[in-house]
Parts: sequence; C-alpha cells; structure tokens
Amino acid sequence: MNGAHTLVQIPPGVQCFVGEEARRRREIEDRVLSVFLGWDYEEIIPPLFDYADVFSEPSLRSRTYSFLGRDGSVLALRPDFTSLLAKIAAGRLAGRGLPMRLYYSGEVLRYEPPRAGRQSELYQMGLERLGGEGRTGEVEVLAIAAESLEAAGVSDFVLTLGHVGVFSRLVAACGLDAATEGALRDRVEAKDGDGAAEVLARSAARPELREAILRLTELAGSTSVLDDARRVLAPSEEALGALSELADTVRALEAAGLGNRLAIDLGEVRGLDYYTGLVFRVYAPGLGFEVGGGGRYDGLLGRYGRPMAAVGFMLGLDRLDVLLARQLAEITKRRAIPVDVTGGSLAEALTLARRRRTEGERVRFLEGGDR
Amino acid sequence: MNGAHTLVQIPPGVQCFVGEEARRRREIEDRVLSVFLGWDYEEIIPPLFDYADVFSEPSLRSRTYSFLGRDGSVLALRPDFTSLLAKIAAGRLAGRGLPMRLYYSGEVLRYEPPRAGRQSELYQMGLERLGGEGRTGEVEVLAIAAESLEAAGVSDFVLTLGHVGVFSRLVAACGLDAATEGALRDRVEAKDGDGAAEVLARSAARPELREAILRLTELAGSTSVLDDARRVLAPSEEALGALSELADTVRALEAAGLGNRLAIDLGEVRGLDYYTGLVFRVYAPGLGFEVGGGGRYDGLLGRYGRPMAAVGFMLGLDRLDVLLARQLAEITKRRAIPVDVTGGSLAEALTLARRRRTEGERVRFLEGGDR
Repeated sequence: MNGAHTLVQIPPGVQCFVGEEARRRREIEDRVLSVFLGWDYEEIIPPLFDYADVFSEPSLRSRTYSFLGRDGSVLALRPDFTSLLAKIAAGRLAGRGLPMRLYYSGEVLRYEPPRAGRQSELYQMGLERLGGEGRTGEVEVLAIAAESLEAAGVSDFVLTLGHVGVFSRLVAACGLDAATEGALRDRVEAKDGDGAAEVLARSAARPELREAILRLTELAGSTSVLDDARRVLAPSEEALGALSELADTVRALEAAGLGNRLAIDLGEVRGLDYYTGLVFRVYAPGLGFEVGGGGRYDGLLGRYGRPMAAVGFMLGLDRLDVLLARQLAEITKRRAIPVDVTGGSLAEALTLARRRRTEGERVRFLEGGDR
Repeated sequence: MNGAHTLVQIPPGVQCFVGEEARRRREIEDRVLSVFLGWDYEEIIPPLFDYADVFSEPSLRSRTYSFLGRDGSVLALRPDFTSLLAKIAAGRLAGRGLPMRLYYSGEVLRYEPPRAGRQSELYQMGLERLGGEGRTGEVEVLAIAAESLEAAGVSDFVLTLGHVGVFSRLVAACGLDAATEGALRDRVEAKDGDGAAEVLARSAARPELREAILRLTELAGSTSVLDDARRVLAPSEEALGALSELADTVRALEAAGLGNRLAIDLGEVRGLDYYTGLVFRVYAPGLGFEVGGGGRYDGLLGRYGRPMAAVGFMLGLDRLDVLLARQLAEITKRRAIPVDVTGGSLAEALTLARRRRTEGERVRFLEGGDR
C-alpha cells in the first residue's frame, strides 16, 4: 500500500469504461475514423512515451508525467500527439512524399493538480497534414473536422476560427515586454476590455495600435466580423496580412457550403505555443467547453530540420461522448442477442457452443455438466 | 536534451507503426475481438496506470515503470491486464452478476533491461471469465483461444496445457525450502533432468517423490502423456488430483473437436505467480516464443475480498503479427482507391471533394487554386 487509497480504489483522473460505455466510445471512434480514412489519411500508432524534451512547449511541460527510462534518460508519457508526430514525420518518415496525411486515435496523459477534478487520461482522435500547400491544408482539415462531427452524430456545432498572427503582430508592433504581453494575452482571452486597457495604459504603444488590441475582445461572432476587423486592424499592415489569410480560408469554406458551421473569434489567443497561423476550436451550444480544435503550425517540423506547412486538428472522445449524450444522439449499434448454450455434460455443451459459433451466432456459454 | 539520443531518435523498446503496418494490426485486432464478442464478452477499457501495489507480483514488480502521482502516491504503468481487471471487478464491478465476461485490447508497458532487445511497449488482446463454475470457464476460454487464432488466420498452432498444482503439490509434499524450490523450478522449466536431480539430491524428500519431480521434465507431448503421468504421480494424491482436473478439461475439449490443437507439458512451471490451476501457452511450429497464454487464477480476486474461480488468456498482437507474416497469411483488407480531387480554385476543389464524399468515395485532396 502507498498513500491513503483503499485497496480497490483507482487513482483520481484515470479512465475506466465497461460494457455499454466502452461500446459507445468504440462506435463514436469508428464513425470519426471512417471520415479520416475517407480523406485518404493513414493511421500512425506512435509510442506512449518519448524523451521528455519532445514535449518542451511551456504549455505542455508542466502537465507532463515524466519518469526515468532504462538507460537513465528522462522519459515522458505523451501529453499531446502533434509534437510527437512532428518529430516522427521529420525523422523516420523523412523519405515519404508530401503532403503526409496521418491520423491517430489514442490516449494522452496529463499531469493535473490534485482536486482540479480534471482527467489525467484523455482519448484523442486527430490528424495532421504535413507539407504541401498550407491554405489547401487548412480548408481540407476544416472540412474533415466538420464531416467528422456530422458523422459522429453531432447535430449542432460551430467551428470558431481565429489567427494567432492578428494578436501577435499587433503586440509585436507595440514593442511590449514578455510579461506585459502575457498579462495582455490573458485579459484579451478573458474578453476583459477594461483589464486589457489597464495593461496597455502602462505601455508606450501608439494609440491606434492599443485601440486595435482592445477591439479584439469584441471581434467575435459570424464571419461578417471579418469586415469590421479590416477597419480595426488598418493601423497594422502585418495584422491585416494575417486577417487576409484567415479571410481566404473562410471564403473557400463558405463557397463549399460550410458557411453555416463557421464563426470568428479574433480574441482567441490561447492555445498551444506551436501554432503559427489559423487556429480553431469546435464548440456546441450549451456545452461549456470545446470538443476539439486545431490549427496551423508551420514552425514545429523546423525544430527537427524539416520546416514545412502543417495543419492539424483533434477531437476529444470523452467530450464528444458527453456532447452526443446531451444531444440525445443514437450511438450504440444493434447487436445480435446471444443464444444461451448449455448441455447435459461440459463436453456436450462445448460441442454445441462451437457449432453455434460456426453458424455465426453469438453464444453465452453457461455452466455445463452438473445440471 | 537529455541522455545521448539525437533529436529525432525514439527511445529503445517503444512502438511506432504507420500506414500498412498499422492497418495489418487493426485488421488482426478486429478479427480476434469479433470472436470475443461472439462469446458474449464485454469490453473493458481500464486505466493506463494504477497504484503500484496492484502490480506487486514478484514477476511483475521488477518490470514495472513507476512514477509519482499528483497526490504523492507511487503509480505504475500497467505491465499486465489481469491484475488490474481483478481489482476493478472486485471493486467497482462488485454489483454485477457472475460470471463476468470481460475482454480488453490495449498496451502494456514493461521495464526491460537495456540492450535486452525486448519491447517495453506491447499490445495485448485478452479476456477474463470471473466467477461461475471454474471447469466451465476453462473449457470456454480454451475454445475461444482456439477460435481467435483461427479467425486471425493462423493456420497451425498448439495449445500446450499444464497445471501448476502438479509441480507445486509434489514440492509441498517434499517439504523443500523456498530457495531449493526456486532452483528446482528453474531446472524443471529448463527440462534439465540432471540439474534437477542435483538440486533434489540435497533434500531429504522421499525417493518416489523425487523421481516424480524429475519425470516432469519428460512429461510433455500429446495428450496421451496424461496416462504416463498418472503412473508417475501415483506417490502423491495431491498431485494426482491436479492431474485429474487437467484431464477433465482435456476430455471436454477433445469431445468438442479440439483434440488436434492440444498438447501437454507438465514441466511448464513458469509464469505469473497468480495462477492456481490450469496454465496454457499458445505455440506455433517454427516460432521460438509463445504467441499468448493464460490460465486459472482463483486466488487473485480474493486479495480484494471477493474470492472466486477465474480464468483468462491473452494474445500478444506483436507476436501474432510476426507469426501471421511467417505463415504468409492474407491480412490486409482491400480498400477503395482514393479519387484525386483538384479544381480551378481552392473553393471549387473543396466543393467537389465534399460532393464526392457525400457520394461515399474516398478522396485525396490535392493542391488547389494555383494550378
């Protein structure tokens, strides 16, 4: 025994699914993966752990379970697939043609503070489109995200799009120090215009740039927000460039019939540090958290010596399951009802059960012999 | 960076499968799990890690990756499913009717010494039949093992059966100390009759018991070995009792048409410490290691306050994959060839791709727009 747990208790934050719960999850997974396959993505089954330095993003590092490997190196359970796949793609898959289209489906493990009530063990299904033309990758990945949600049975969802360049290029033009930038990011993310104004009041940035940053907290809603944004961002050519990239992607998605699934949020500035352009999250009405998300991360493979355009996204199976339950979606497939098999002796019962199996029936083998 | 690995290297002993390799594995897994479902087993998806004390078997403890959890307790990555499922069945599934029929499919992680060349990350598919009448469980589990191997496409395999009671009851009757017993187990396992005789020469055991133990190294082969064994084990009523249990199971399997898949090895005394009766391993001609195995472990749930008859078995996916490759089995399912989709503009190309998808086609979305 260690700690204060009872003999049959499982650690906080870990998963355990049985029977019907497990069947629902497999069915949702099958539906989503069939869409990934339908767009010609190939499965990759990566290691459960790798050297800890693979997960060195500030937002991942503090949430990584690490331990000592057999050769004394520091290993870490994967907290994220994208970092791991970027490394594998740049290394052992270096000989493959581009774009590489890879999908994964498996667990990630995250160290969460005690009593936060959050899961340590999460199941993610996602894909990465590595190399090729970046804008093409963006629209493909967003179309797959939408189709996956529909295939899973989600009746109502929104893909909320942003671009990390809008905020970061405005901030760069302001010449803020890292601490001020962090505080500002936090306030913009919280859509706290007053708080953001307070942070900016301490800076020497040009008033029109400050104003543009403050307005980011309001530039959220339907895709018509992009028109307002064009006026707001006029003082920064760099931020306008980011906006124009985002608008190109939105236009292609609208033309292909996905307009009713789109929203914009230019105040969306959180997220993993490796994103370089488009970022998006999947929301559903009445659900207080996102179901998944993704974005463009052109810098990540460059760390391993193979810079290229890259876009990815993932759906959290645990959250998708909750969402489908709330939307009362029909998930479980009908299965054949098992036939009870017994017999006068154990040998007779087993002979009968094996015969039923060759006839394609499901069997439930009961106590034989002594009845 | 830590240790001496290069930036793109993955740690020794971990898995990574891509494309065709991953497809083969999924197909083998599907075939095996469809048999588990066909016998009315329910999936359980247990945690990837648990408190380290769950894996306290001497043969597991030294091979367990452990780390500190968020509340300071010592956690361990699962090196084995059976111990974990026994705990969950005795705890959170305590209210369920018996027998419980549970199957699993997932990774286990084992600490292996450097340069042993063994995998740390293994994929196992298996099941546990918990409660109910034990002999019924044995024949059911063995029939499922045989059907799973056939369904996977294995053309030639043998289920080699033993009973841990034969050796342990002979040894108990000899009154050996633990060190002598360990040395003897090692020699019998190695089928080293001379070595075993040397160990026994130092004991005060009755000559006919010593002779019986030595003969275990030879009692292996077809099921007719059971007749020889009856004569050899005559000096120990307890060992004869174990043999008779094994013979009952063999008779039922033979009557149900499985005789040609069976072999006996009474010198099979290795294995996990939790086995209490029947043990078996799956072998195939020309393959120098077993593909899976299982047995009876009536004591394990008793540790959690719910003693009951229990039988389980598992197949190693990695080994099954190697075996099927050697037997040149056809594994990969034919898949639709993707249609290349492009267009005059990105919007046109995406519109076309989405239309093809609604028509049920696989698509490969190519660089659009600028050609």
